[in-house]
Amino acid sequence: MIETSTVPEILSRARKLIDQGLHRAIDSLSMELRPLASYHLGWTDEQGRKIDGDQGKGIRPALAVLSAEAVGKPAEAGVLGAIAIELVHDFSLIHDDVIDNDVERRHRQTVWALFGTGQAIILGDALNALAMRIVLDPALVGIRMAKETDSRSLAAAAKCLADATASMISGQALDMAFEHLTEIDVAGCLAMEAGKTGALLGCASSIGAILAGAEEAQITALERYGIELGMAFQAVDDVLGIWGDPSATGKQTFSDLRQHKKTLPVAIALTSKSKHVSELSKLLTEEEINEFDIERLAGLIEECGGKEAALTEAKHRFESALNVLKKVDLEPNAKNELVALAHFIIDRKF
Amino acid sequence: MIETSTVPEILSRARKLIDQGLHRAIDSLSMELRPLASYHLGWTDEQGRKIDGDQGKGIRPALAVLSAEAVGKPAEAGVLGAIAIELVHDFSLIHDDVIDNDVERRHRQTVWALFGTGQAIILGDALNALAMRIVLDPALVGIRMAKETDSRSLAAAAKCLADATASMISGQALDMAFEHLTEIDVAGCLAMEAGKTGALLGCASSIGAILAGAEEAQITALERYGIELGMAFQAVDDVLGIWGDPSATGKQTFSDLRQHKKTLPVAIALTSKSKHVSELSKLLTEEEINEFDIERLAGLIEECGGKEAALTEAKHRFESALNVLKKVDLEPNAKNELVALAHFIIDRKF
Repeated sequence: MIETSTVPEILSRARKLIDQGLHRAIDSLSMELRPLASYHLGWTDEQGRKIDGDQGKGIRPALAVLSAEAVGKPAEAGVLGAIAIELVHDFSLIHDDVIDNDVERRHRQTVWALFGTGQAIILGDALNALAMRIVLDPALVGIRMAKETDSRSLAAAAKCLADATASMISGQALDMAFEHLTEIDVAGCLAMEAGKTGALLGCASSIGAILAGAEEAQITALERYGIELGMAFQAVDDVLGIWGDPSATGKQTFSDLRQHKKTLPVAIALTSKSKHVSELSKLLTEEEINEFDIERLAGLIEECGGKEAALTEAKHRFESALNVLKKVDLEPNAKNELVALAHFIIDRKF
Repeated sequence: MIETSTVPEILSRARKLIDQGLHRAIDSLSMELRPLASYHLGWTDEQGRKIDGDQGKGIRPALAVLSAEAVGKPAEAGVLGAIAIELVHDFSLIHDDVIDNDVERRHRQTVWALFGTGQAIILGDALNALAMRIVLDPALVGIRMAKETDSRSLAAAAKCLADATASMISGQALDMAFEHLTEIDVAGCLAMEAGKTGALLGCASSIGAILAGAEEAQITALERYGIELGMAFQAVDDVLGIWGDPSATGKQTFSDLRQHKKTLPVAIALTSKSKHVSELSKLLTEEEINEFDIERLAGLIEECGGKEAALTEAKHRFESALNVLKKVDLEPNAKNELVALAHFIIDRKF
């Protein structure tokens, strides 16, 4: 009899599994960087005092752990990958906050806002290097891999991580370029989002299977599931970035529009056949946009079908993620939990 | 009969060996990042037009190639490592320039000064990820490794790179912390410089041997040679950073003192028994320092023996690097070229 855990149980179990290794990883940083990493992770406040802060949902580590179980191995086989993914994710958040000039994350000051740009750059770099180091040398965080995990599996996991990091960076570069463009198409926007969000979720969803020495077909399917899920998540995030309730998102109203982000709803609206497209284009080119125009902009994007089509895209990507899982031989319980996680990621407050 | 090449020949041969692979690596970057990388590398100007720019001396790639030859393998065996090391070095320069607020490098505007901080952060991240990717997947740059190069060697090379990157970052973090400290000791300063400069030169000097599947004793010795050489280089650089001739260094007079850098001569002077130490300490705490005081500061450091002792340290490290080479079995011609490179690195204009 299979008993599928609830999402909070899945997430909390993954958190517990990575806890010791993640602490050891952070402890291996130099004295100067450790308090900054600990602050970012929500373990300490700006004075270095222990707190019970918001550590994020931990979806990526949960995916990594489940991906090992999905191929019939114990969750522990995925823990190394889960820690590495978490570190790469943190590195990307810390650098993105500098790049996007964001002063707040999870209702706290961002690292650069509190400690300065230089410190945020170096901390991100350190977490990135740390992720690669531990995957190539698990003993560094006291993880003893199963005997059958050879250097081939570790090299493959490291490659998964490096490739995903590279794709994520390309996506971020494209995202930045879009801020200065008004002519963008849907395909370009989807490519950007596949990189920015899909790649790391794809790696998270397969790195445990890679470390567990799974078959190629299983690894490919799990990675695809993660990429599709990432794109579904991003499409929802794009809608929230414009129409989300500030009290739920923790961001300003119309936040993405204020930052000149050209996300999926904007790309869809711009390439629609609506009579409003030219007005939309014009408003998007304005360097400084007032409150009245920003509301008008959001309204135009909706009228051009951007909101609805983005949500439809999210739905399709979500279904596609689940379909991939159906077609491959995976351990049923872990598969159910991957489905549950997918639902959780997509069902967010508007 | 052994014929040792001259240093310009060694450097130019390494440049030629990595040229195609490095271009392929940069070509694999996304459209947005490629022109920035190409600008940084001195291949194009700020408009993207091809130029014959200053590409740096290329000491690190030369070391990597020689380290393969030193263990009796063809230079080609080290090319993959040479390209990866060059990319990591470039990543570190690009991020360091942001952190140190340096607007000029090799007589051209730095990436952040020309394209903005965000672009410089993302470009550095991209080059770092690229370095890891190609080491784990040489086919990406069209390099076919020798049949005996298995994933174990690639994983070991990747680990060498990730470990060196992590040490370099720790060193940089310590360097930044020193800017706000007046009480630093020589041991701490040497540890900082071992990380900041030694680690990557250690990796450069051994990665070719690692890829060539050399014996542990050879790899360890070559790495040690590189670390000692790096520390010798850094000690000379520290002296140049204070007393160097601006026309030769391309930097302002007393450049490091203006930036509050606590380099080796400063650490040595501060811990000396000279009667000038208290005046020195006092001057170092001044936030804004005038031209008169800065000259006085340089004079005090010299009087406290900082300059002479730093040069002695450089000499010892240099000798230690050569001694390491003497004690291990290496191919004589490559060994001679490593000695020639060591001389070249240390003999710089004051």
